[in-house]
Amino acid sequence: VLSQPVRIVVDWGSSNFRAFLFSGDGEIIARHAASAGILSVKDGAFEAVLRREIGGWLKGSGTEIWLSGMITSRNGWVETPYAACPATLDDLASAALTRRLTDGCRLNFLPGVMMDGATTDVMRGEEIQIFGSVAADESATLVLPGTHSKWASVEKGRIAAFRTFLTGEVYALLTAHSIVGRLMPKERGPFDAAAFAGGVEQALAGGAGLLSDVFTVRSDALLGRLQPEAMADRLSGLVIGHEIAGALATAVKPGYMIIVGEAELAARYQQALAIAGIRSRLAEPERAVEGFRRLMAGA
Amino acid sequence: VLSQPVRIVVDWGSSNFRAFLFSGDGEIIARHAASAGILSVKDGAFEAVLRREIGGWLKGSGTEIWLSGMITSRNGWVETPYAACPATLDDLASAALTRRLTDGCRLNFLPGVMMDGATTDVMRGEEIQIFGSVAADESATLVLPGTHSKWASVEKGRIAAFRTFLTGEVYALLTAHSIVGRLMPKERGPFDAAAFAGGVEQALAGGAGLLSDVFTVRSDALLGRLQPEAMADRLSGLVIGHEIAGALATAVKPGYMIIVGEAELAARYQQALAIAGIRSRLAEPERAVEGFRRLMAGA
Repeated sequence: VLSQPVRIVVDWGSSNFRAFLFSGDGEIIARHAASAGILSVKDGAFEAVLRREIGGWLKGSGTEIWLSGMITSRNGWVETPYAACPATLDDLASAALTRRLTDGCRLNFLPGVMMDGATTDVMRGEEIQIFGSVAADESATLVLPGTHSKWASVEKGRIAAFRTFLTGEVYALLTAHSIVGRLMPKERGPFDAAAFAGGVEQALAGGAGLLSDVFTVRSDALLGRLQPEAMADRLSGLVIGHEIAGALATAVKPGYMIIVGEAELAARYQQALAIAGIRSRLAEPERAVEGFRRLMAGA
Repeated sequence: VLSQPVRIVVDWGSSNFRAFLFSGDGEIIARHAASAGILSVKDGAFEAVLRREIGGWLKGSGTEIWLSGMITSRNGWVETPYAACPATLDDLASAALTRRLTDGCRLNFLPGVMMDGATTDVMRGEEIQIFGSVAADESATLVLPGTHSKWASVEKGRIAAFRTFLTGEVYALLTAHSIVGRLMPKERGPFDAAAFAGGVEQALAGGAGLLSDVFTVRSDALLGRLQPEAMADRLSGLVIGHEIAGALATAVKPGYMIIVGEAELAARYQQALAIAGIRSRLAEPERAVEGFRRLMAGA
């Protein structure tokens, strides 16, 4: 009796492990999630963790497992090279590095995507969300806000170019560790849209740059021009505004953008983009899952 | 018998305590330094620390003590307001807040200096270095590199305007805590002038801004375009280059500048300013001490 092929996708990042079991016609029939990111895996025991988390899904040969995220990085299980832009979802699938486990299960480690021209850039994982956010032949400009925010230009279903901004990480560092954060109250109040907008406008006005603008959050507070409770949102507006200004300085201003990310942060980006004169829509949730669904449909 | 008046300056910062005893004709006749910054002072016991460190110099009434630095901040002994630009050394002296100790010693807490116009800025301590770096009636543009780098425009002996850049602090945070620093070797090698210059040039070329530029330090290393050993100096060049670009975006480019600071960092700034087409000279050491000497000569 021929058994059905088993198809699994594992989105294995630094902090989280998420797996999806697909039916023969490409629909998700089971999901599993755990706090079993690669940083928690001791001594490279990736196979043991895989079996602990989704061992019940594995059926030996005929089992195809696709892996994406930091599991394919230098600190992961198998390091994959980066696919060069422009890149399609098919390009990623065909560049996957395969390994066979002793019981016959086959692992397919997906590549990341790189820019390697006048400037360089890399991503590992976000490309799946990008492919899950646009129709197969669509052209669009997307932003994926976050610790390492990505701007991506998709042309007819290919990732043509992208750029990373350290926005979320710089915001977090300045808030937690810098002299600017020191005056901020420990308790975070409700979002202050006006303070946020003020930061965006200051950044877009093109003063003396981010290194100077962030200090004005402190001096404005010291001189009584800004309430301490409003400092964090002003700073948030400043860094997001500088991200937008930087992106627009090196590309044609898009008339319209898609924002892919968690709702609260996406809403901030929508407000900031509007101040910059760019209309946008928020992508549906679970764009990574949709990207994996498309990957499986093509695989 | 009338005793000679005793004149003392205390430069009391977050980490360090430095005191200078002046003769009647305004020369320094004794110095004392200790790691007794205000962050180490428990329960506001500033007077006890002052007596522990320089109690032997104090002679009751007739003793004038001038205090500068973070000791005059909200977390210090007496918080002084900021003097507005343009400000002279005499303006600072005459705006000092005085307190008398029970034995008659008089304390004079110097103000900081502020900009409170279209944008705000503050400093507390650096102004003494600035006054110690220029002749009484000189006009000059100065930079004081450091954790919170200051650019100051002095017109005929007055601090006309200044601007703070969080350059050193952002560099330290990115190196110690960010994804960019994670690829850097723990051991710091010799200064890589070419990597540093590359960072300055990238910043001055005006790409997608600091938040994007710093990520290229990581991607260049991942793609083999930059040696891990060179990452820190490239990043240093990037943040200093962005400071210079930001300063020049909001002011007329000076033909010539004075760099006031510690020799190794000052040399980096001189290299970076040269790339930006600005000639510069390094100030003599101990400009704060010279500033205090001038303060005492006028007091």
